[in-house]
Amino acid sequence: MIQNPILKQKYPAKAHCRKLAAYLKEQSLSTDGIVYLEGGKSELHEDCDQEGPFRQRRNFYYLSGVQLPDCSLVYNLDADYLTLFLPPVDPDDVVWSGTPTTPEQALQRYDIDAVETTSNAAAFLSSSAVPKGSVYAIPHRISKNITFLPFSNVDLEHLDSALGDCRIVKDEYELALLRYANAVTTEAHTACQKLVTGDHKPTREEDFLSAFTAERLRNGCYHEAYSGIFASGTNASTLHYVHNNQPLSGRLNILIDAGAEYHCYAADVTRTFPLSGKFSTESAAIYKIVQDMQDAAFALCRAGMTWDDVHSETHRVAIRGLLHLGILRCGTEQEIFDSRASTAFFPHGLGHYMGMDTHDTGGRANYADKDPMFRYLRVRGKVPAGAVITVEPGIYFCRFILEPAIKDTQGVGRFIDADVVERYWEVGGVRIEDDIVITEKGYENLTTAPKGLGL
Amino acid sequence: MIQNPILKQKYPAKAHCRKLAAYLKEQSLSTDGIVYLEGGKSELHEDCDQEGPFRQRRNFYYLSGVQLPDCSLVYNLDADYLTLFLPPVDPDDVVWSGTPTTPEQALQRYDIDAVETTSNAAAFLSSSAVPKGSVYAIPHRISKNITFLPFSNVDLEHLDSALGDCRIVKDEYELALLRYANAVTTEAHTACQKLVTGDHKPTREEDFLSAFTAERLRNGCYHEAYSGIFASGTNASTLHYVHNNQPLSGRLNILIDAGAEYHCYAADVTRTFPLSGKFSTESAAIYKIVQDMQDAAFALCRAGMTWDDVHSETHRVAIRGLLHLGILRCGTEQEIFDSRASTAFFPHGLGHYMGMDTHDTGGRANYADKDPMFRYLRVRGKVPAGAVITVEPGIYFCRFILEPAIKDTQGVGRFIDADVVERYWEVGGVRIEDDIVITEKGYENLTTAPKGLGL
Repeated sequence: MIQNPILKQKYPAKAHCRKLAAYLKEQSLSTDGIVYLEGGKSELHEDCDQEGPFRQRRNFYYLSGVQLPDCSLVYNLDADYLTLFLPPVDPDDVVWSGTPTTPEQALQRYDIDAVETTSNAAAFLSSSAVPKGSVYAIPHRISKNITFLPFSNVDLEHLDSALGDCRIVKDEYELALLRYANAVTTEAHTACQKLVTGDHKPTREEDFLSAFTAERLRNGCYHEAYSGIFASGTNASTLHYVHNNQPLSGRLNILIDAGAEYHCYAADVTRTFPLSGKFSTESAAIYKIVQDMQDAAFALCRAGMTWDDVHSETHRVAIRGLLHLGILRCGTEQEIFDSRASTAFFPHGLGHYMGMDTHDTGGRANYADKDPMFRYLRVRGKVPAGAVITVEPGIYFCRFILEPAIKDTQGVGRFIDADVVERYWEVGGVRIEDDIVITEKGYENLTTAPKGLGL
Repeated sequence: MIQNPILKQKYPAKAHCRKLAAYLKEQSLSTDGIVYLEGGKSELHEDCDQEGPFRQRRNFYYLSGVQLPDCSLVYNLDADYLTLFLPPVDPDDVVWSGTPTTPEQALQRYDIDAVETTSNAAAFLSSSAVPKGSVYAIPHRISKNITFLPFSNVDLEHLDSALGDCRIVKDEYELALLRYANAVTTEAHTACQKLVTGDHKPTREEDFLSAFTAERLRNGCYHEAYSGIFASGTNASTLHYVHNNQPLSGRLNILIDAGAEYHCYAADVTRTFPLSGKFSTESAAIYKIVQDMQDAAFALCRAGMTWDDVHSETHRVAIRGLLHLGILRCGTEQEIFDSRASTAFFPHGLGHYMGMDTHDTGGRANYADKDPMFRYLRVRGKVPAGAVITVEPGIYFCRFILEPAIKDTQGVGRFIDADVVERYWEVGGVRIEDDIVITEKGYENLTTAPKGLGL
């Protein structure tokens, strides 16, 4: 797998620090002072001596590029000076685990100005090495031995959301990481698709999970970006399906929503395809609608678009398609749109920001929204150039959602033809999800995993 | 993969509860009362809305057989009555995730007497449903809303260690789970071994990790029992090697220490084999010593053996072998044994109990032992029939350990021939690890993964 040569350079930690400083200034917040951040801590599994899986704190990685556990950092805003704190070396640990990263290695590998030891962090913070103006930190992410007493202003309010906003627009280095995660994810989805046409036919959902994971690991992506969904047949109607362990016998399609993580950056890709190698008539009809929804969304994607509008447009396309199939009825497209009946088939949001977190920061969702069409939309308002967002329309035949909707004969139920729906339960659910980066004039699709009715 | 038919039955939770009650009685502790245990909690990754990986609390699984998160249990000791508490159903969650386990399903699936809801647990504990004698619980594993006020005796001291002791001897059901985890692990190790003789030669450590994981997942083992070690060449001398990402070029052997987990039960298996398909002279010589160490240990394994003695015997075998190769010198076997020089080559313990935890409970290790030969031995004293223990001798050429030892010319250094050692650095390390169940007359080896000089 070929990487962008930019990834041979250091992760641009200092550029991210400067971006944060500029953001704070724009908000008329003082930059006479420092940022203090702690990274993720190594932890043992409860009740035993085995280490649990380590996940670096995203904000810490953003300002340091360091994947090691138990570190912290101080960034002097006005002086533009970044100090990394490494944990002290335990000689016993060296015998069992080898030498940890030395200060010299850290200076060579990371885009930082100085290296200290975390055991000196408290003293460092009260020393003359830092200004006594403001300290920005994140509440509940500060070790007990750390004191900010010498600072005239302790700001625990702004740092987390400032970093959340800074992280929306990605730079070239971040895009290179996201592209690599996506390229590996494409390989993994392709391996899954090849299973159904190969010599050894898959018999259980595990077979896809296995093929996907093997390809991910082979390409150096040691973490999945999120818990993958490998849902066959009607299991695909469960949006948060987690079992991934059912036999495939008698099932039509499989929905695979899974992605690789690479150096803390995610990919999030969904493909749905027929287990027999050929879509049934009903599956093809639903797939076509979802494809049309995605194409309609793509057509609107460019810097400055309002995501709520793009989401609405995909509902209109869904309504048109479902009216054509007779699943929706007894109303105009507008009447049905206003009734929110389409949310019974497409209950989730069209997409979310993606970056270090699969559901990345800065989306300003409103989960208290009374309107069911927008309650679960994870990005609200305008999307800037350089943001990476998923475009993931879907149509589902979920009994927990559709049966109460059909029974609501005074409400949305009057628009749904239960007899026609009866023919579609086995389709389960279809979702197609790509990751795109927004540009001034449109978008670039990072996801190249095969899709379409030919699958 | 064929499972023992016993696994179609329920996990023997009640038998384990009764075993615990009998243990408490033996310790002259009151059984007029209850045991209260909480299971593992579902948790989100820090700072984002994604669920982290769930790991059931082992003691909870032992007394319930329940793998679901956010449950708890009450076992009435004298009445022999086990109540499972399921978390309350969130209607929103059903829409996204499907129906959770119902009380009826729980009664059908698990070896329990009654089902309640965790939101009623506090009321239940103060109701007449439980006796007011003793309550046994584990400190720091009790939710804030739980009160033991009605009980005349709150015992937070004995439950954890009692369960630790009860878990040492495995029953047939547990052995069936351990056998299955071991059978899958054998398949996965075999897949790794086939890589080096196959058409697509592996080029990086990841290739083995990928092959191992694919086989594990395909067989329904969704968790690794512990972080696997895939260490090529000199990396194998790092006992806790974690990178698993190095190119294989120019390296002699690979050491793979990895195991599958099945329904909370572990396998822990190590194999070392040549990347070229053929051991070098030096590698073969070291492999032979480790094999002899394991065979010598096996020969002593039977109920009632003292594990410290078995461990000592493998050191004697190692000393004999290293003397023969000229790596050790200038002393009799006994002199070298007494000097502890062999711990520079074999620094870890011979093995540990294995069960739900890979390093299972009840071993009574003494990490404060001043004797380096026994400091890291995880089982001390007599081993009973029915215990499952790993037998994992190893010889390593670790610069962090050997170089200081060689320099200690007044101490162990005088027994080590640095010139001869020079020829062995590239061997890295050899470990062979099998999981055995101790019987009255000997042992049964649960591990069938191929091993030997023919690999």
